[in-house]
Order: sequence, then C-alpha cells, then structure tokens
Amino acid sequence: MLVVKKFGGTSVANKERIYNVANRCIEEYKKGNDVVVVLSAMGKYTDELITMAKDINENPPKREMDMLFTIGEQMSVALMAMAMANLGVPAISLNAFQVAMHTTSVYGNARLKRIDCERIRNELEQHKIVIITGFQGVNKYDDYTTLGRGGSDTTAVALAAALHADKCEIYTDVDGVYTADPRIVKTARKLDQVTYDEMLELATLGAGVLHNRSVELAKKYGVQLVVRSSLNTNEGTVVKEGHKMEKMIVSGVACDTDAARVAVIGVKDEPGVAFKLFNALAKANINIDMILQSVGREGTKDITFTCSTADADDAARIISDNMECQSIDVNKEVAKVSIVGAGMQTNAGVAAKMFEALYDANINIRMISTSEIRVTVLINEKNTERAMNAIHDKFDLGNVS
Amino acid sequence: MLVVKKFGGTSVANKERIYNVANRCIEEYKKGNDVVVVLSAMGKYTDELITMAKDINENPPKREMDMLFTIGEQMSVALMAMAMANLGVPAISLNAFQVAMHTTSVYGNARLKRIDCERIRNELEQHKIVIITGFQGVNKYDDYTTLGRGGSDTTAVALAAALHADKCEIYTDVDGVYTADPRIVKTARKLDQVTYDEMLELATLGAGVLHNRSVELAKKYGVQLVVRSSLNTNEGTVVKEGHKMEKMIVSGVACDTDAARVAVIGVKDEPGVAFKLFNALAKANINIDMILQSVGREGTKDITFTCSTADADDAARIISDNMECQSIDVNKEVAKVSIVGAGMQTNAGVAAKMFEALYDANINIRMISTSEIRVTVLINEKNTERAMNAIHDKFDLGNVS
Repeated sequence: MLVVKKFGGTSVANKERIYNVANRCIEEYKKGNDVVVVLSAMGKYTDELITMAKDINENPPKREMDMLFTIGEQMSVALMAMAMANLGVPAISLNAFQVAMHTTSVYGNARLKRIDCERIRNELEQHKIVIITGFQGVNKYDDYTTLGRGGSDTTAVALAAALHADKCEIYTDVDGVYTADPRIVKTARKLDQVTYDEMLELATLGAGVLHNRSVELAKKYGVQLVVRSSLNTNEGTVVKEGHKMEKMIVSGVACDTDAARVAVIGVKDEPGVAFKLFNALAKANINIDMILQSVGREGTKDITFTCSTADADDAARIISDNMECQSIDVNKEVAKVSIVGAGMQTNAGVAAKMFEALYDANINIRMISTSEIRVTVLINEKNTERAMNAIHDKFDLGNVS
Repeated sequence: MLVVKKFGGTSVANKERIYNVANRCIEEYKKGNDVVVVLSAMGKYTDELITMAKDINENPPKREMDMLFTIGEQMSVALMAMAMANLGVPAISLNAFQVAMHTTSVYGNARLKRIDCERIRNELEQHKIVIITGFQGVNKYDDYTTLGRGGSDTTAVALAAALHADKCEIYTDVDGVYTADPRIVKTARKLDQVTYDEMLELATLGAGVLHNRSVELAKKYGVQLVVRSSLNTNEGTVVKEGHKMEKMIVSGVACDTDAARVAVIGVKDEPGVAFKLFNALAKANINIDMILQSVGREGTKDITFTCSTADADDAARIISDNMECQSIDVNKEVAKVSIVGAGMQTNAGVAAKMFEALYDANINIRMISTSEIRVTVLINEKNTERAMNAIHDKFDLGNVS
C-alpha cells in the first residue's frame, strides 16, 4: 500500500513534534507500506519570513518572496530526514526542483500542473521514506512558486493522485471533521465520514480543517482523504465520494466571522449595473460571496453582497469610484452561519428548520444564500455562538441518528 | 565590463549591511557594467543551522545536511533582491538549481564541475543584477551539495571564469592582504598586489582572507582577483599572475595556531613504515602537513608530523591501533609561523635571516619545512606573537622598499 501523509506546521514545530511525526511515519513504513510524507514549514516560520522580508522591502517582489518562502519547507524536510535517520530508517528529503513539481507561473498563488514521479518512485523502490516539501513548485522559467493558502494540503493530494496512492492522510491538530467547531458548540460530534461536496462547503465556509482547493483536487481524481490528529491515534474522518452512509440530513454547522456586508444603496435600475459593479471588483481580485439585489426607491435598486473583512473598504472605494449610487454602507460586524449536508438535496424543510432555530433564539437573519447541499445565513457577529448552538441542537447533531 | 562581486556572511549580517552591499553593487551597475553578485549565508546562520541539525541528530546524514545548509544562501539572495528592488534597480536571485552549478557528488565537500551560463546571461541581457547563492551546487543525482570551507569564494571565482568576467572582487572585513595579521603585528602593511602562488601559500597558512581552492581556481583560469573591504572604498589587494612588481623578497608573515605535533617514537626501521603510517591516516581523512623523520635508538626511527588540533588525538589512536612503536607524544601547544614571497626563489639566505630573527628573540624552533616560496617553522604556541613581530621587523615588512 502507498500512503501519502501530510503534516502541518504545528505538527513539526519543534524537536519533540518532529520525532512524533517521524515515529508515526516509521510505524506505517514498518507495516511494509510505501510512505510519502509532505511537510509545511515549522510552526510560524512562514510568518517570520514575511516579517524578515517586510523589514527589507515593504512590497517585496512576489518572485523573490517565493524564493524566500520555499526555504521554510526545505528546512522541515531536511530535519525530518535527519530524525528518521537517527531512528535507523532510510529517508530522503526532496524539494520542488528535485521532485519536479510543475506549476503555473503565478508567484504566490500558483496551480500545480504536473508532477514527475520518477525520482519519488526510485527512492520508494530503494525502501526509503520520501519526505517532500509542501506548498512549493517550480514554473516554466525554473523559478520557485508557492501554492497560496492551504498549499501543502494541495501538494499532498496532488502527489496522492499522481502516485495513485491508496490513501492520503491529512494530519492536523483536531481529531477530524466535526458537526460544528467544538470550541463553540460543546455537544459537537466528530463525523466518521463526509462526502467531497460536504467537505467543500465546509472548507469554503471556514471550517478550517482542509483547504477547498485540496478537496476539489481530491474529488477530481478520486483520492480518498483521511483527516486526523497528529497528537493521537483516533480514526479521524474519511472524505470520499458517495451518498451519505449515515442517515443524517445535515452533517454539520459551520461559521465564518471573516465576513463583511457591503450595501450599495440606490443604484440606477438599468441593464448592466450588476455586471459593472462586480466586474470592477473582480478586476481588483476581490472575492464576492453572497449577493442580494432588491428593489429600491424611485426607480433605483439596492445591491448587497458579502466579502472578506479585509476587502470590504477597498470594495466600497472601488464602487464609489466606478459608479453612481446614493450611499454605500459597510458592516464588518457580521458572520455567516451555514448548515451543510448531502442529504439536504432530497429533504424538504431543512432550511425552514434552520430559520426556526434562529427565530426561537431571537436572532435576526440579514441575508440568506443556498446551494444544493448548504444553507447560509448572515447574522450579527455577536450572535454567532448562540446561533450555532441553537442550530446544532435543533438538528440533534450531537447524537448519532 | 562584467564584474563578479562576492560578499561574505558578515557583509550581509543585517538589514543595514544588506543595503550597504546593495548600494555598492548598484554603484557598479550604474556605471553601465554587468554585475553578478555571490553571497554567503547571513552572519552566523550556517552555524545556527548546524546547531539545529545536531539537536535532531548528532550525526546527520551529509546529504540532508547540505539540503539544510543551502537555505542559508537562498535567504541571503532573496533578501538582497528585495533590497535592490526597493532601491529601484531590477535584480533577480538564483540558486544552484536555477543557475545549474554542477558539482561532483560528495556531500559537504563537492567540487564544481561545470556552470551553465545561459540563465545568467539572459538575465544580464535584461539589465538585471544577478544575485547567486555561493557555497552550493547540484550533483548528478539532482541533490544539493556544498563546497566546503571557503565555498562562496570558489563559487565567485568559478562564475568569473565561466562568464569570462573582467574582474572578480572578493569583499571581506579587512582592507586586503597584509604583510602579517594586523591584530598581531602592529606595523603590518597592506600589499597592493600579490601573485597567485604567494596568495596560495598565505591562504594555506591560515591568513584567512581567501580560501586556497578559490585561489587555485583563479590561477588555473587566469581570473584577476581583488580582495577588498565591504566597509570602505579602499583599493584592496590585487591577486594576479606574474613576478613580483615590488622589490620585496618576502611579502608576508603568516601564522596558524590550529596545529598539533604528533611524535611517533621508536618505530621499526624497515621499508614501508612511513607508507603504512600515513596511509592509515589518509584513510581516516586526516590531513598531514609537516613531516620529519629521524634516526632513533637501537635500530628504530622516530616519525614526527603536524596536523590540525582537532585531528591530533584521532591520529594518535589510529597509529597505535595500526603499528608498533615505543610511544606516541601529542603536543597541541604549538604554532606554525611562515614567511612567504615569490622573490625567495632567487634569493639565498632568506631562511637563515628568519632563523636569526627567532634566535635573537630566544625562540626555539621545533620543526622546519620549506617550499620554493615559503619557509615554515613550528614553535611553541605561546611565542607566536613575539615570533611574528621579530620576523616582520627583521625583514622590514612595514616599510615599502
């Protein structure tokens, strides 16, 4: 069996944890399996590199930033190979050049295009544990690139796909995917499995366990993911294709407090207004989430949308620069709360049940958005915790049905 | 004109110094010259990486050690490129993979074999300052290697040779090559120029300004070297082919206190004894310097040699394991003091004058060794400073003759 194991920065933050990871990998190796390990930079080292760069140049060229970033993972993999050697197991570290992780050219946010597997297969045939730098790639100019947020997860899934691995395990500091954030909802329960689509909705909604790009990639290539803790040997959550096995309609409640609501009041009610507005924002690379358009007063209309808190002021400025409107209102004190579940597609009344839970808790809904397997509401940020608990209880997610 | 400039770790140890180097390079660039910069790791960062590795594994695999080492120079070059960008000058950093610095396979002590110049030339044609990682290479397995001590000097000289550079400037924290270490001999004087051979003898003898491998390479390819300070704009010392221009017989006095004397007393006086002894040491990678063989008592002989202090005990152990002798005596409290000068070849009495200086100062000579342009004596370490000053004065090196 070939297993790809990915460990994040906290899992390799110090000597003790490096040895913990080394031992876990060796355990797998001693079962007779081929083991490929993907690592992030140690602890907060990437942040330290950013600080170092900003001290030299407030706006460092992205190409050079990636050149600097890649040393973080190279440090992790070299030290890990040393730890495994010390434990008497043959191991070898490889960076993006050595594997050949081909990506698009975009520095800071490249996409993986192709992985050469020859070197990895050769090392595996020599019965070595192969330790690979996550997050980084090489573009057609032979320059380092990085894959953006959650990049190491993407590296792991892409390697699992390219190597036709039997399993791709993503190790984090939580036990798996929960019905809700256990820090917010005390009765939250770990799920044994979720579908790719559910995981995608959860990832997008800030559940924070897996980045959505890695889940998309896993879905595309049918890579079976396991999300589990690096701190214990609990089973974790399996992410795979298929209908839900459990008879749960809703599998989880997620929240995202990094949301702002921008209301553009009194724009002209004529064709092309929405296009003009969102095109201007797209050009500035501002990602828009929920959109709501309503009829305004005196032949005008109001357009309201949500974006990340950091982008909200930029969005307002761009809109006032590009189009006429009566006023723009920015509210950063809002949060998105969502229920996600593959079972929702075939079950009526799920959304209504969620709204009822919020009504019972006397929480006002500002906006509503739905997909086939998700219902999201925008509420005041201060109500987040109450809302999540109310919904979690209403759907009885703490108990296996 | 194409100029290669190499800056050591102390020259890029912090933000201020990075900008100092950036400005010096830009000055050259603004004269209309092509500029290639070679950098070492910042300050004591390589030592920090060693500490980091040893904490994980007391004997880290050399391949992984090189994987770890190379991040030091990559950090320097990326930050330098950011500094130059901030000063409005186009610059690009390149590592050993990107340049293609092909080396032999030996980790930790590889030799440069071939440098691909295409990428560098392309970037120079686009009027960029090209900043290259010193010390590191890539072997035929596509693994990182490092060039051992003084590796960045070697990188710079090899690049200058491959690119047919007009000049190779080695920046250090001293003004150039001196007639003696100015910290020991107050009257020491900076030399305007020395020959490759003189520089080689000085480098081998621990003058510490340039590593001998880089000087050998410069001599082989006729690369004109300039040793100068990164802290001021003084002219420095030119290292080049040719007889001495100055009418100095002796150009400098050097010392090396990292020396130990190992005396092997009473070995059998029969053929093959010296071979057996030094072959056993060579197999253990112990470098031997001065060798002296003398007739011992009762059909035996004594063999005495010097090696580095760190190797002395190992050497004694290996000898006692491999051959019969009456006793082995190790003395680490010794130092080598040498005079170097191309003019010595044609001047009789130079050695005698040196011995006279030591006699006048009442310093006992333990061993003597000579080459065509060098005389070295082994003395008690505590006499080093007095010996150097006595010799320096005797030859009147403080004054231009």
